[in-house]
Amino acid sequence: MNLARKFTAEFIGTAGLLAVVVGSGIMGENLADGNVAIALLANTIATGAGLAFLIWSFIDISGAHFNPAVTLTEMARGGLSWKDGIYYLVAQITGGFFGVGLANLMFELPVYSASTKIRTGGSQFLAEVVATFGLIAVIHCGVRFRPNKIALMVALYITAAYWFTSSTSFANPAVTLARSASNTFAGIMPQNVPLFLLAQIIGAFLALFVFTWLLKEEKEEEISNA
Amino acid sequence: MNLARKFTAEFIGTAGLLAVVVGSGIMGENLADGNVAIALLANTIATGAGLAFLIWSFIDISGAHFNPAVTLTEMARGGLSWKDGIYYLVAQITGGFFGVGLANLMFELPVYSASTKIRTGGSQFLAEVVATFGLIAVIHCGVRFRPNKIALMVALYITAAYWFTSSTSFANPAVTLARSASNTFAGIMPQNVPLFLLAQIIGAFLALFVFTWLLKEEKEEEISNA
Amino acid sequence: MNLARKFTAEFIGTAGLLAVVVGSGIMGENLADGNVAIALLANTIATGAGLAFLIWSFIDISGAHFNPAVTLTEMARGGLSWKDGIYYLVAQITGGFFGVGLANLMFELPVYSASTKIRTGGSQFLAEVVATFGLIAVIHCGVRFRPNKIALMVALYITAAYWFTSSTSFANPAVTLARSASNTFAGIMPQNVPLFLLAQIIGAFLALFVFTWLLKEEKEEEISNA
Amino acid sequence: MNLARKFTAEFIGTAGLLAVVVGSGIMGENLADGNVAIALLANTIATGAGLAFLIWSFIDISGAHFNPAVTLTEMARGGLSWKDGIYYLVAQITGGFFGVGLANLMFELPVYSASTKIRTGGSQFLAEVVATFGLIAVIHCGVRFRPNKIALMVALYITAAYWFTSSTSFANPAVTLARSASNTFAGIMPQNVPLFLLAQIIGAFLALFVFTWLLKEEKEEEISNA
Repeated sequence: MNLARKFTAEFIGTAGLLAVVVGSGIMGENLADGNVAIALLANTIATGAGLAFLIWSFIDISGAHFNPAVTLTEMARGGLSWKDGIYYLVAQITGGFFGVGLANLMFELPVYSASTKIRTGGSQFLAEVVATFGLIAVIHCGVRFRPNKIALMVALYITAAYWFTSSTSFANPAVTLARSASNTFAGIMPQNVPLFLLAQIIGAFLALFVFTWLLKEEKEEEISNA
Repeated sequence: MNLARKFTAEFIGTAGLLAVVVGSGIMGENLADGNVAIALLANTIATGAGLAFLIWSFIDISGAHFNPAVTLTEMARGGLSWKDGIYYLVAQITGGFFGVGLANLMFELPVYSASTKIRTGGSQFLAEVVATFGLIAVIHCGVRFRPNKIALMVALYITAAYWFTSSTSFANPAVTLARSASNTFAGIMPQNVPLFLLAQIIGAFLALFVFTWLLKEEKEEEISNA
Repeated sequence: MNLARKFTAEFIGTAGLLAVVVGSGIMGENLADGNVAIALLANTIATGAGLAFLIWSFIDISGAHFNPAVTLTEMARGGLSWKDGIYYLVAQITGGFFGVGLANLMFELPVYSASTKIRTGGSQFLAEVVATFGLIAVIHCGVRFRPNKIALMVALYITAAYWFTSSTSFANPAVTLARSASNTFAGIMPQNVPLFLLAQIIGAFLALFVFTWLLKEEKEEEISNA
Repeated sequence: MNLARKFTAEFIGTAGLLAVVVGSGIMGENLADGNVAIALLANTIATGAGLAFLIWSFIDISGAHFNPAVTLTEMARGGLSWKDGIYYLVAQITGGFFGVGLANLMFELPVYSASTKIRTGGSQFLAEVVATFGLIAVIHCGVRFRPNKIALMVALYITAAYWFTSSTSFANPAVTLARSASNTFAGIMPQNVPLFLLAQIIGAFLALFVFTWLLKEEKEEEISNA
């Protein structure tokens, strides 16, 4: 498959993901009458559903990363060339901002405006490490054992992670950057972005390390048993 | 398969879809005590579930379009004859009104009454373009890559789209027309219907254009690689 | 497979179904702080999940009817002997009451007490006809086209039907009888039971009639095409 | 597969399960504005999603027990050696406490603090017997008839059981022990733990007894029919 198509798939996919995350956050907050749990519930259901249909749609074209944490760990373990990786990262970041702009426009808001939502502190840092660790772990197990279930696994992981982490689980640097450009429910202050990115990179590479070991060992064993 | 059976499947399927959308909207609003987010959450869950079981039930008979935007793009790309297409459109529109009438009757309302719910403006126009673009895009990817998952992909797409678009994603001209005949939660003023239809047609053909290119290119490549 | 095992499967399965429906209704009402939509949402999610795991657990033993409307239409179309059918009906009705008693006990209520919840009128009668018609229709399509998806199809159907019918879709005579014995959220006054049963039988046989024709026609056609 | 990997899978899996259960409970309670049903709904959705992705991730390594009730019944029926079983139990209990500590830390709470939530009485005892009976029953049916659906069956079972049992269905001794160490939504007073454990063991072995008979009989029959 050629790189233009992969780029397009990553761009549209990440744009779709951000439109879903930010758009459903706005709708949820608009309608929930101040009950944040109901707004987050709507945001969760939309995001889980969105991830499933987006991954199923594009996984056969680009692998459906939509996430620099996935792309970078793939580059590091040799599953993706560095040249292709750069294109993926550009597609994800530009796609993310495109999706946020679209969501803002659909709800009669300025295309872009800096978020004022504070998301910081040691607990949220830990939460983003855990969230990204879990996401990369689930993807590694899925790729290894259940490739045809991976869309559902990622969708269900994020569905749970919106609730079990105090940061509501961004777990994705492109998503984090783009969400700083919408001053709505799903937003994050630009000043708080760097710490989130750092936590996500730490969590991702920690998972790469642990699960390469955990899943590699078995491979060798299978060979020795064969 | 003969056309009478396809017509019946499209009629019952679209009637079922509208009964689900309008009926669950009424129930949601009746019980939600003024919290619109909870009403829309119930409406969303019922519609997502409804699409999945309806498509699984009828896809082997008629292809389970239930949507003139799907039928028209299929006619345009040569997947459905123009004669059959006309029957599909008639079945969808009459089925839609039948389903709305049934929902109204089940909740002790007049069989038909014009909706007074205003749904208009540039943002909602954009939302319907995006919503229908996304729906046709998902269907194209599903047909191309995961035909056995297409019912779930459409159901999950609409589940997300109820929340990430400001119009709550009609994305279907038969649904739009029929929902103008119920003055309830899911209704739309008859005067606002034409602009929604226009947006849906634009979104559908835009997706046909983009995804024919995106998915065709790969085919050629596969051939060249073979 | 012997009849004792089928009887046991229908008994445990229907008991489980009623424990889920009535138990989650009580829990929902206890916690929802007067917001009936939230209670019904919890009741819906539990019932949909319950149907899926119960059908997957027992379909290979007894066919997982758990519903006299299913058993009676199967008997009528010759898919189940009259002798076996009687055992199924007894298992479903006794299992249903056992499950309701269990739910009541788990929530510190008297084992049985007559419901005082009024569910009557022409609209609810129509709703039960539609609800049972739809259920039998979905089962017919599932058995014919997607036997491995039938648990999900039924679960999703009832998930939607809890909301799109004004009666919240009993669609099951054993469930209707048993729910009259719990004076809680999911209950129904004993006096209102007969009309519900009549509507369910009408809906079930109407669906048997329509879908036997719709699905039979295709079979003949396939043969003529072969 | 070697025992170190199985131990690691059970440890990470049970830690993940507890992080999901306790973390989403805290988040739900924090946001739900006093509406316990909404908090439990969020807790339910996160837990159901969590179980599905965790089982899919680890079932091919360790069998994805994450639950001493599963491990003990497996040991009793000879599916797991006593030596391996001990390792499983240690991994589950230590993993459970690790997950609770992580959840507490992510929400800026002390790593561990004894719960003050009273969960006791005959009704809750019965509820835990029923909940664990059902869980082990579903697992037996799944292993016997639908091994590739077992992750979904368990996830859907617990989704329903959070609502149809008055105890919200712990159904897992490791989960019960670990939840006593978080004074939050999902907690349980340490003093109330022993009765829950007793009920769970009774329910698990009752299910082992009933379903060994129910499913064994069929096997013999199949042989006699062969």
